[in-house]
Amino acid sequence: MHILIVHAHPEPLSFTTALKNTAQHSFEQQGHSVEVSDLYAMNFNPVASKQDFESLSQPDYFNYALEQRHAFKQQHLAPDIQTEIEKVQRADLVIFSFPLYWTSIPAILKGWIDRVFVSGLFYGGKRFYNHGGMRGKKAMLCLTLGGRDHMFGEGSVHGPLEHYLSSLQRGTLAYVGFDVLPPFVAYHVPYISQEDRQKIVIDFEQYLQNIDDLQPLVFTLLENFDDRMNPL
Amino acid sequence: MHILIVHAHPEPLSFTTALKNTAQHSFEQQGHSVEVSDLYAMNFNPVASKQDFESLSQPDYFNYALEQRHAFKQQHLAPDIQTEIEKVQRADLVIFSFPLYWTSIPAILKGWIDRVFVSGLFYGGKRFYNHGGMRGKKAMLCLTLGGRDHMFGEGSVHGPLEHYLSSLQRGTLAYVGFDVLPPFVAYHVPYISQEDRQKIVIDFEQYLQNIDDLQPLVFTLLENFDDRMNPL
Repeated sequence: MHILIVHAHPEPLSFTTALKNTAQHSFEQQGHSVEVSDLYAMNFNPVASKQDFESLSQPDYFNYALEQRHAFKQQHLAPDIQTEIEKVQRADLVIFSFPLYWTSIPAILKGWIDRVFVSGLFYGGKRFYNHGGMRGKKAMLCLTLGGRDHMFGEGSVHGPLEHYLSSLQRGTLAYVGFDVLPPFVAYHVPYISQEDRQKIVIDFEQYLQNIDDLQPLVFTLLENFDDRMNPL
Repeated sequence: MHILIVHAHPEPLSFTTALKNTAQHSFEQQGHSVEVSDLYAMNFNPVASKQDFESLSQPDYFNYALEQRHAFKQQHLAPDIQTEIEKVQRADLVIFSFPLYWTSIPAILKGWIDRVFVSGLFYGGKRFYNHGGMRGKKAMLCLTLGGRDHMFGEGSVHGPLEHYLSSLQRGTLAYVGFDVLPPFVAYHVPYISQEDRQKIVIDFEQYLQNIDDLQPLVFTLLENFDDRMNPL
């Protein structure tokens, strides 16, 4: 396998970064190849804008998705976007490594998706969900957060974590065709002991060693919907 | 009322921008005052980083929330963050105006939240949900999207829109204490006629005229949980 890790933490000594390093080493020991997009280290620009395209098909009315399709076809995408697209194209598995900011991803990672998941390649026309452009590839989240396990779930103080992750897991990754593996979630990270952190690292190593056996999460199959996307 | 509109669309002629303008004019006609943070026009920097603080309390290990608390207390926040905080403090109602990007907010808006909703003011200790720092203020979303109404909801092709919005409505706005009003959602925008767009503008004007009568969405009440955040 070839693996891309997209990492979004500003502190190289953070536990989030330690988990990213764990994944990299574990995969390399298993004989896989690993590539990392360390968004903070790259000073990645997360703002989707006109500057993302060498030329505009509609200069008087800027429509981002339309310009993505045009620029992808003409090979007029900004070089930093093109580079990231090629990393995704090379990968069999894409891992998103981040701390949960406001029950979601940090802006620098959101912008990586906004700019890199271009219309015309990742999705377009009838190519979405199990017909999406990234079908055949896997994706997974590795995230750290401050809350405790029991604070999430139906009836809990914050409600189900899956709802907060649905924009990324369902509305983005499954939408473009990835098989989305169950996320690896490290709870209560800023408050736990070094020993408990070490236990999480060991759990993550086991998760990574068994990754081939993990069943993807179940999302939409287009075969269950008609042409107007009404349920059959 | 004093209203802050946080707007995140790169095209001044877009329908999203037209709805923002509708809100501004409608409120001004009702005798309210309105302030707009037009994030693209401001070239707002959405990346949470060390540069957000004049000095660091822990220079060797960067923890963003900890530095927010420190810098807020010391008045050492970056000037662009301080300016946005004061806008929120002045407002009785904050409106978020954006196109749905990947079933979520554009990165430039996510970064506004990451950087502006500082620990120590918006939340901290036991001050969250109905005890959050912004209690007494209202917030609402005004969003445009490409999908049709029937594509969202339980059993639909994309599932419930509320799940995708939960990071913003529950995990962010309700968490810091805002009363979150029902969102105004404009569906299928890139594909509809000028006449249908005009109908949406009229619906939105009615929504805005009745805004004082809207009941906030119901989220967590801390009184229903014990000190460890287990349900009572």
